[in-house]
Amino acid sequence: MIKQSNSTINVDALFLGPKSENAIFFREMMEYAICEHLHWRSGFHPEDSALITTVDRYTADYRDTLYRTEGILNQLSSKLKTTSVPWFSPRYLGHMNADTLMISNLAYVMAMMYNPNNCAQESSPTTTHLELEAGEDLCRMFGYDPDTSWGHITSGGTVANYEGLWVARNLKTLPLAMAKHKQARNLLPNISEQALLNLSPSTVVDFIDQLKYAGWFEEVRALTCRGAGVESSKLGKLLVPQSKHYSWMKAMDILGVGQQNIVQLPVNQQYRTDTQKMRAIVFDLIERGEPILAIIAVVGTTETGAIDHVDSLIQLRRECEQRYGVSFYIHIDAAYAGYACAMFLDEENQFIEYEQLIHRYQQEGIFPTDVIWPKPEVYRSFQALKEADSITVDPHKVGFIPYAAGAICMKDKRIVDLISYHAAYVFESVTEKTPSTKNQQVVLGASIMEGSKSGATAAAVWAAHRLVPLNIYGYGKVIAAGIVTANWLTEKLNQTEPLSIDDRIFKIYAMQTPDFHMVNFMFKQIDNHDLQQQNQLNKRMYELCSFATGRSYTNDFLTSSTSLSHEEYGDNPAIFCQQAGFSSDEWQRVQSLYVLRAAIMTHCLRDKHHFEHYWQELKTIFVNKLQKIVDENNKSNRLATSLATQQLA
Amino acid sequence: MIKQSNSTINVDALFLGPKSENAIFFREMMEYAICEHLHWRSGFHPEDSALITTVDRYTADYRDTLYRTEGILNQLSSKLKTTSVPWFSPRYLGHMNADTLMISNLAYVMAMMYNPNNCAQESSPTTTHLELEAGEDLCRMFGYDPDTSWGHITSGGTVANYEGLWVARNLKTLPLAMAKHKQARNLLPNISEQALLNLSPSTVVDFIDQLKYAGWFEEVRALTCRGAGVESSKLGKLLVPQSKHYSWMKAMDILGVGQQNIVQLPVNQQYRTDTQKMRAIVFDLIERGEPILAIIAVVGTTETGAIDHVDSLIQLRRECEQRYGVSFYIHIDAAYAGYACAMFLDEENQFIEYEQLIHRYQQEGIFPTDVIWPKPEVYRSFQALKEADSITVDPHKVGFIPYAAGAICMKDKRIVDLISYHAAYVFESVTEKTPSTKNQQVVLGASIMEGSKSGATAAAVWAAHRLVPLNIYGYGKVIAAGIVTANWLTEKLNQTEPLSIDDRIFKIYAMQTPDFHMVNFMFKQIDNHDLQQQNQLNKRMYELCSFATGRSYTNDFLTSSTSLSHEEYGDNPAIFCQQAGFSSDEWQRVQSLYVLRAAIMTHCLRDKHHFEHYWQELKTIFVNKLQKIVDENNKSNRLATSLATQQLA
Repeated sequence: MIKQSNSTINVDALFLGPKSENAIFFREMMEYAICEHLHWRSGFHPEDSALITTVDRYTADYRDTLYRTEGILNQLSSKLKTTSVPWFSPRYLGHMNADTLMISNLAYVMAMMYNPNNCAQESSPTTTHLELEAGEDLCRMFGYDPDTSWGHITSGGTVANYEGLWVARNLKTLPLAMAKHKQARNLLPNISEQALLNLSPSTVVDFIDQLKYAGWFEEVRALTCRGAGVESSKLGKLLVPQSKHYSWMKAMDILGVGQQNIVQLPVNQQYRTDTQKMRAIVFDLIERGEPILAIIAVVGTTETGAIDHVDSLIQLRRECEQRYGVSFYIHIDAAYAGYACAMFLDEENQFIEYEQLIHRYQQEGIFPTDVIWPKPEVYRSFQALKEADSITVDPHKVGFIPYAAGAICMKDKRIVDLISYHAAYVFESVTEKTPSTKNQQVVLGASIMEGSKSGATAAAVWAAHRLVPLNIYGYGKVIAAGIVTANWLTEKLNQTEPLSIDDRIFKIYAMQTPDFHMVNFMFKQIDNHDLQQQNQLNKRMYELCSFATGRSYTNDFLTSSTSLSHEEYGDNPAIFCQQAGFSSDEWQRVQSLYVLRAAIMTHCLRDKHHFEHYWQELKTIFVNKLQKIVDENNKSNRLATSLATQQLA
Repeated sequence: MIKQSNSTINVDALFLGPKSENAIFFREMMEYAICEHLHWRSGFHPEDSALITTVDRYTADYRDTLYRTEGILNQLSSKLKTTSVPWFSPRYLGHMNADTLMISNLAYVMAMMYNPNNCAQESSPTTTHLELEAGEDLCRMFGYDPDTSWGHITSGGTVANYEGLWVARNLKTLPLAMAKHKQARNLLPNISEQALLNLSPSTVVDFIDQLKYAGWFEEVRALTCRGAGVESSKLGKLLVPQSKHYSWMKAMDILGVGQQNIVQLPVNQQYRTDTQKMRAIVFDLIERGEPILAIIAVVGTTETGAIDHVDSLIQLRRECEQRYGVSFYIHIDAAYAGYACAMFLDEENQFIEYEQLIHRYQQEGIFPTDVIWPKPEVYRSFQALKEADSITVDPHKVGFIPYAAGAICMKDKRIVDLISYHAAYVFESVTEKTPSTKNQQVVLGASIMEGSKSGATAAAVWAAHRLVPLNIYGYGKVIAAGIVTANWLTEKLNQTEPLSIDDRIFKIYAMQTPDFHMVNFMFKQIDNHDLQQQNQLNKRMYELCSFATGRSYTNDFLTSSTSLSHEEYGDNPAIFCQQAGFSSDEWQRVQSLYVLRAAIMTHCLRDKHHFEHYWQELKTIFVNKLQKIVDENNKSNRLATSLATQQLA
């Protein structure tokens, strides 16, 4: 295994750059990646006689086929250049996208030439190991013991969330399955069926060992919902924050649990799950005798970047166990912010004490003196991740890996036996069924949701982790760049003097200091008190800052947007409305706030001087776009007046 | 849309080649793919001041980071070169792997530079359209009406199979959900609950329109298992061939249907689902009042390449509808052989008449005169695909696309509403909820199982379909190369004179003419009548023809293997055993036959002269490997004798 190095990383040297600054290096390395493979081919049994001669290659249909290949690539390139989004540029601040790591793009291509399939190690002798190593890296980052946990790559956070719920669901039904088994039932404590549904995940996982030892595991497993099918009335409720990603609705459908078994947890003014309300809901469910299938905490919501109080959730579980003897599974959806866990680790992979962390950030220049991150409660959330049963994290988000690369980590790898399978044909005599990096053949497809999968993705993630260590000196530094910019930008947006456009005056409002690096903001015409008009203004602003009004490439600023609605956030958005001068009656009337939404992932604006320059230009861009909106409004007003005049005349 | 051209394809010009014959072209095009993007970057707002100067790029930590990048890529390359499998070579005949299309590799890299995410069109303005076009291509190939069907790319056949079962499951519960709805129940015929579970898929899909028209659709959908959770006892049985891929076991688990609700359909002597037995099972279930959730037919099993009688299944459904008023969903798992549907289509996408097809194959030189393909029953199976409700097909198998690229096609796109979702944040004001290529923003993630997904995969599949038309002149020609070789190889294996190694004589037996291009074969020591010893011989032979005995790169022939067991195939493997001279008692005793398994996908051996040369060499390789096994046996025998002598003395 290649050790992660802690020598000084230069962040700019990791990316191709907004102007292809590293073009020469990138092309050289790409040529290397390709040529290594080309020669690997020609070096395989060089004694073989040529099947395709140079003469063959000059026949008309041969040349024609090559020319047509080129022609189609020309067309593809035209299409891509016409409409693609310039994620790489600091002019793009929208979705969780930015430039991706050069090494990952190069590693992807290098491995793709060999076309490995990580479904079975036989088809991916190298990249299956790279996937397991990458999974271990992530487990270690979250504070899991790499010997007893396991992690692997998925096609994205959605599939990782499915897998988390899959494991939780099958685990929930194991005690009931044991109760149905003539012998295994003797391993259970003498408690009611309901109490069996409330056992702690670790107690149930321990049963797996006992069942295996007794030789009953396969029989009992067939009696879980895996074999018997789901009885949704006996699984309990899934508690998910109101701010949840829609993949949870899909997950409840796909896994047969049913969306009506979702209990939504309200969020607080910070758009995080409201801990007090969550406690009340959990206690109420327990008192009503309703089991809890699992509770999901979100680390980095996709709309505001809010980070749930993971520590409070862990604490709540402990309390439920002590007070009621009731437990439940905990899964963390850290698809967006999971990689930020690297920001808390030193070169020895130790979670750094808070005071020392802040000190070290300053000392090492990871954060400038005017940015203090994280908030103490965000710190405590990341610290508590190691107690969760499983965690979703997306390398293709804050891991800066090209699409598609998600991942899931599970605290106790024995749990995988509840979902594992074997394909007769994909692999030859597998001696052990649990995934392992030991000297044996691994069939990932038998232990995960997906089957065939690209080994090149594993190479991309693995290579990134080798170059950019998962600690404050590696990913910490890269991610900090975005957080710094997010903080500076929030401040600038809120401090900017009102902007005068013709006879109108606009002000910009940004939501309070972000937990991570998502900035939500909006423009307001200061004399407007109508929230619907306000939403229209910002919707139009979004259109002018997106593909909606033409080629992204010709735009000078690109962002994304979202609606903060009562349905998802209760009355919490009313606070931001009020800050901007809208009455609470207006909020009650409209119950939805349209905001611009910018995940600040660019590494290019971490220098204060660059940022100041950028901000001046951005302000000018905003003024120009507001001018355009004012002109449009004036024009349509004139038209309305002229029509009215004509009708009067 | 770029029209598929029908000008003459030169098959050798499609691939990089076993000796990197097309290296110069490939490198040129790769350079083009990369440079187009590099200049796209630097051309985006060229007026921006430089954020990274040339001076910055010569600092020590900057150079160090680049050197370390290079070092890690060196190590990755070493790892890949050490253990990867030379799929590209005709010396590899094993899993469904071969060289992949140059254009797909190039298109993948070209698109990856822009890093599109096909979850939402906003993040993939080009590649979402390419995915829809590629999906349409596949629908059209299967004979679906492209205006009313829909297809999309998945990460692989496993996920496509899940999605097929997901749709079938939710569809099954719609009538019961309607019965629970105060008004919607009036749309139902006045029949029993059981009869509601037996309605035809098309009848149920029509309800969707009626429910939408009446404004009750969302309410009723929430009452299906999607909202209410699965009640596995009310879904009926899933009928799957015994020869099924293990993804079906996973599917039954994940979707909450339960593996105990699988009814296995026995296979016949051709390893296809036994139509007569299937009929008996279906009629029996109907008579016992058990609903059928769906029946799966496999087009190209992963162990023998057998192609189920799809036409008989379609006919059976018609019969059940007429005779009993009972219907069910039909899904085809054509992950392996689906692309072969192109072999039946002319340049106008018309399914060619059988006699004419055979004539045209000869006329156009697609098949040589000594190979007649397909068998009439295989022809009828492909012809009937258009009647199935959904079809899984893997571009990364016989589509010659790099991993990971699966796909699913659905006959009636209205069905997607039973599984569709919307994410508040991924997209702005979607006006229509069904996927469409019309002028609107598409959110694929809301209508499919996965979420974030690589747009580059869509570019790879799309480009392949543009270059290689899905008819007899495109994919037909490429796939035919493998079928021809499979037929010639089967013949050679069976006709080869016994091979003498020292004092032993070995014969080779290949299973009867394959339906597609999978050849199963085995070596037999002619005086051995012990099936266990036979299996050991072939297991050892496999080890000598695989990674199991060292670097694949240094091997001269590579294949895969499988065990044909009683559990999966009943007593059908006994026939092949008997052909090789084993008594049926031996089969009954061992109940498992170990065979070498070769999916013949190489395009390099379609020339008879090349093939003859290859075969001579292969025979020598076989002799050498047999010699090695004999030597090993002699050595261990001598050791045993010497030990015995010592003990006697």
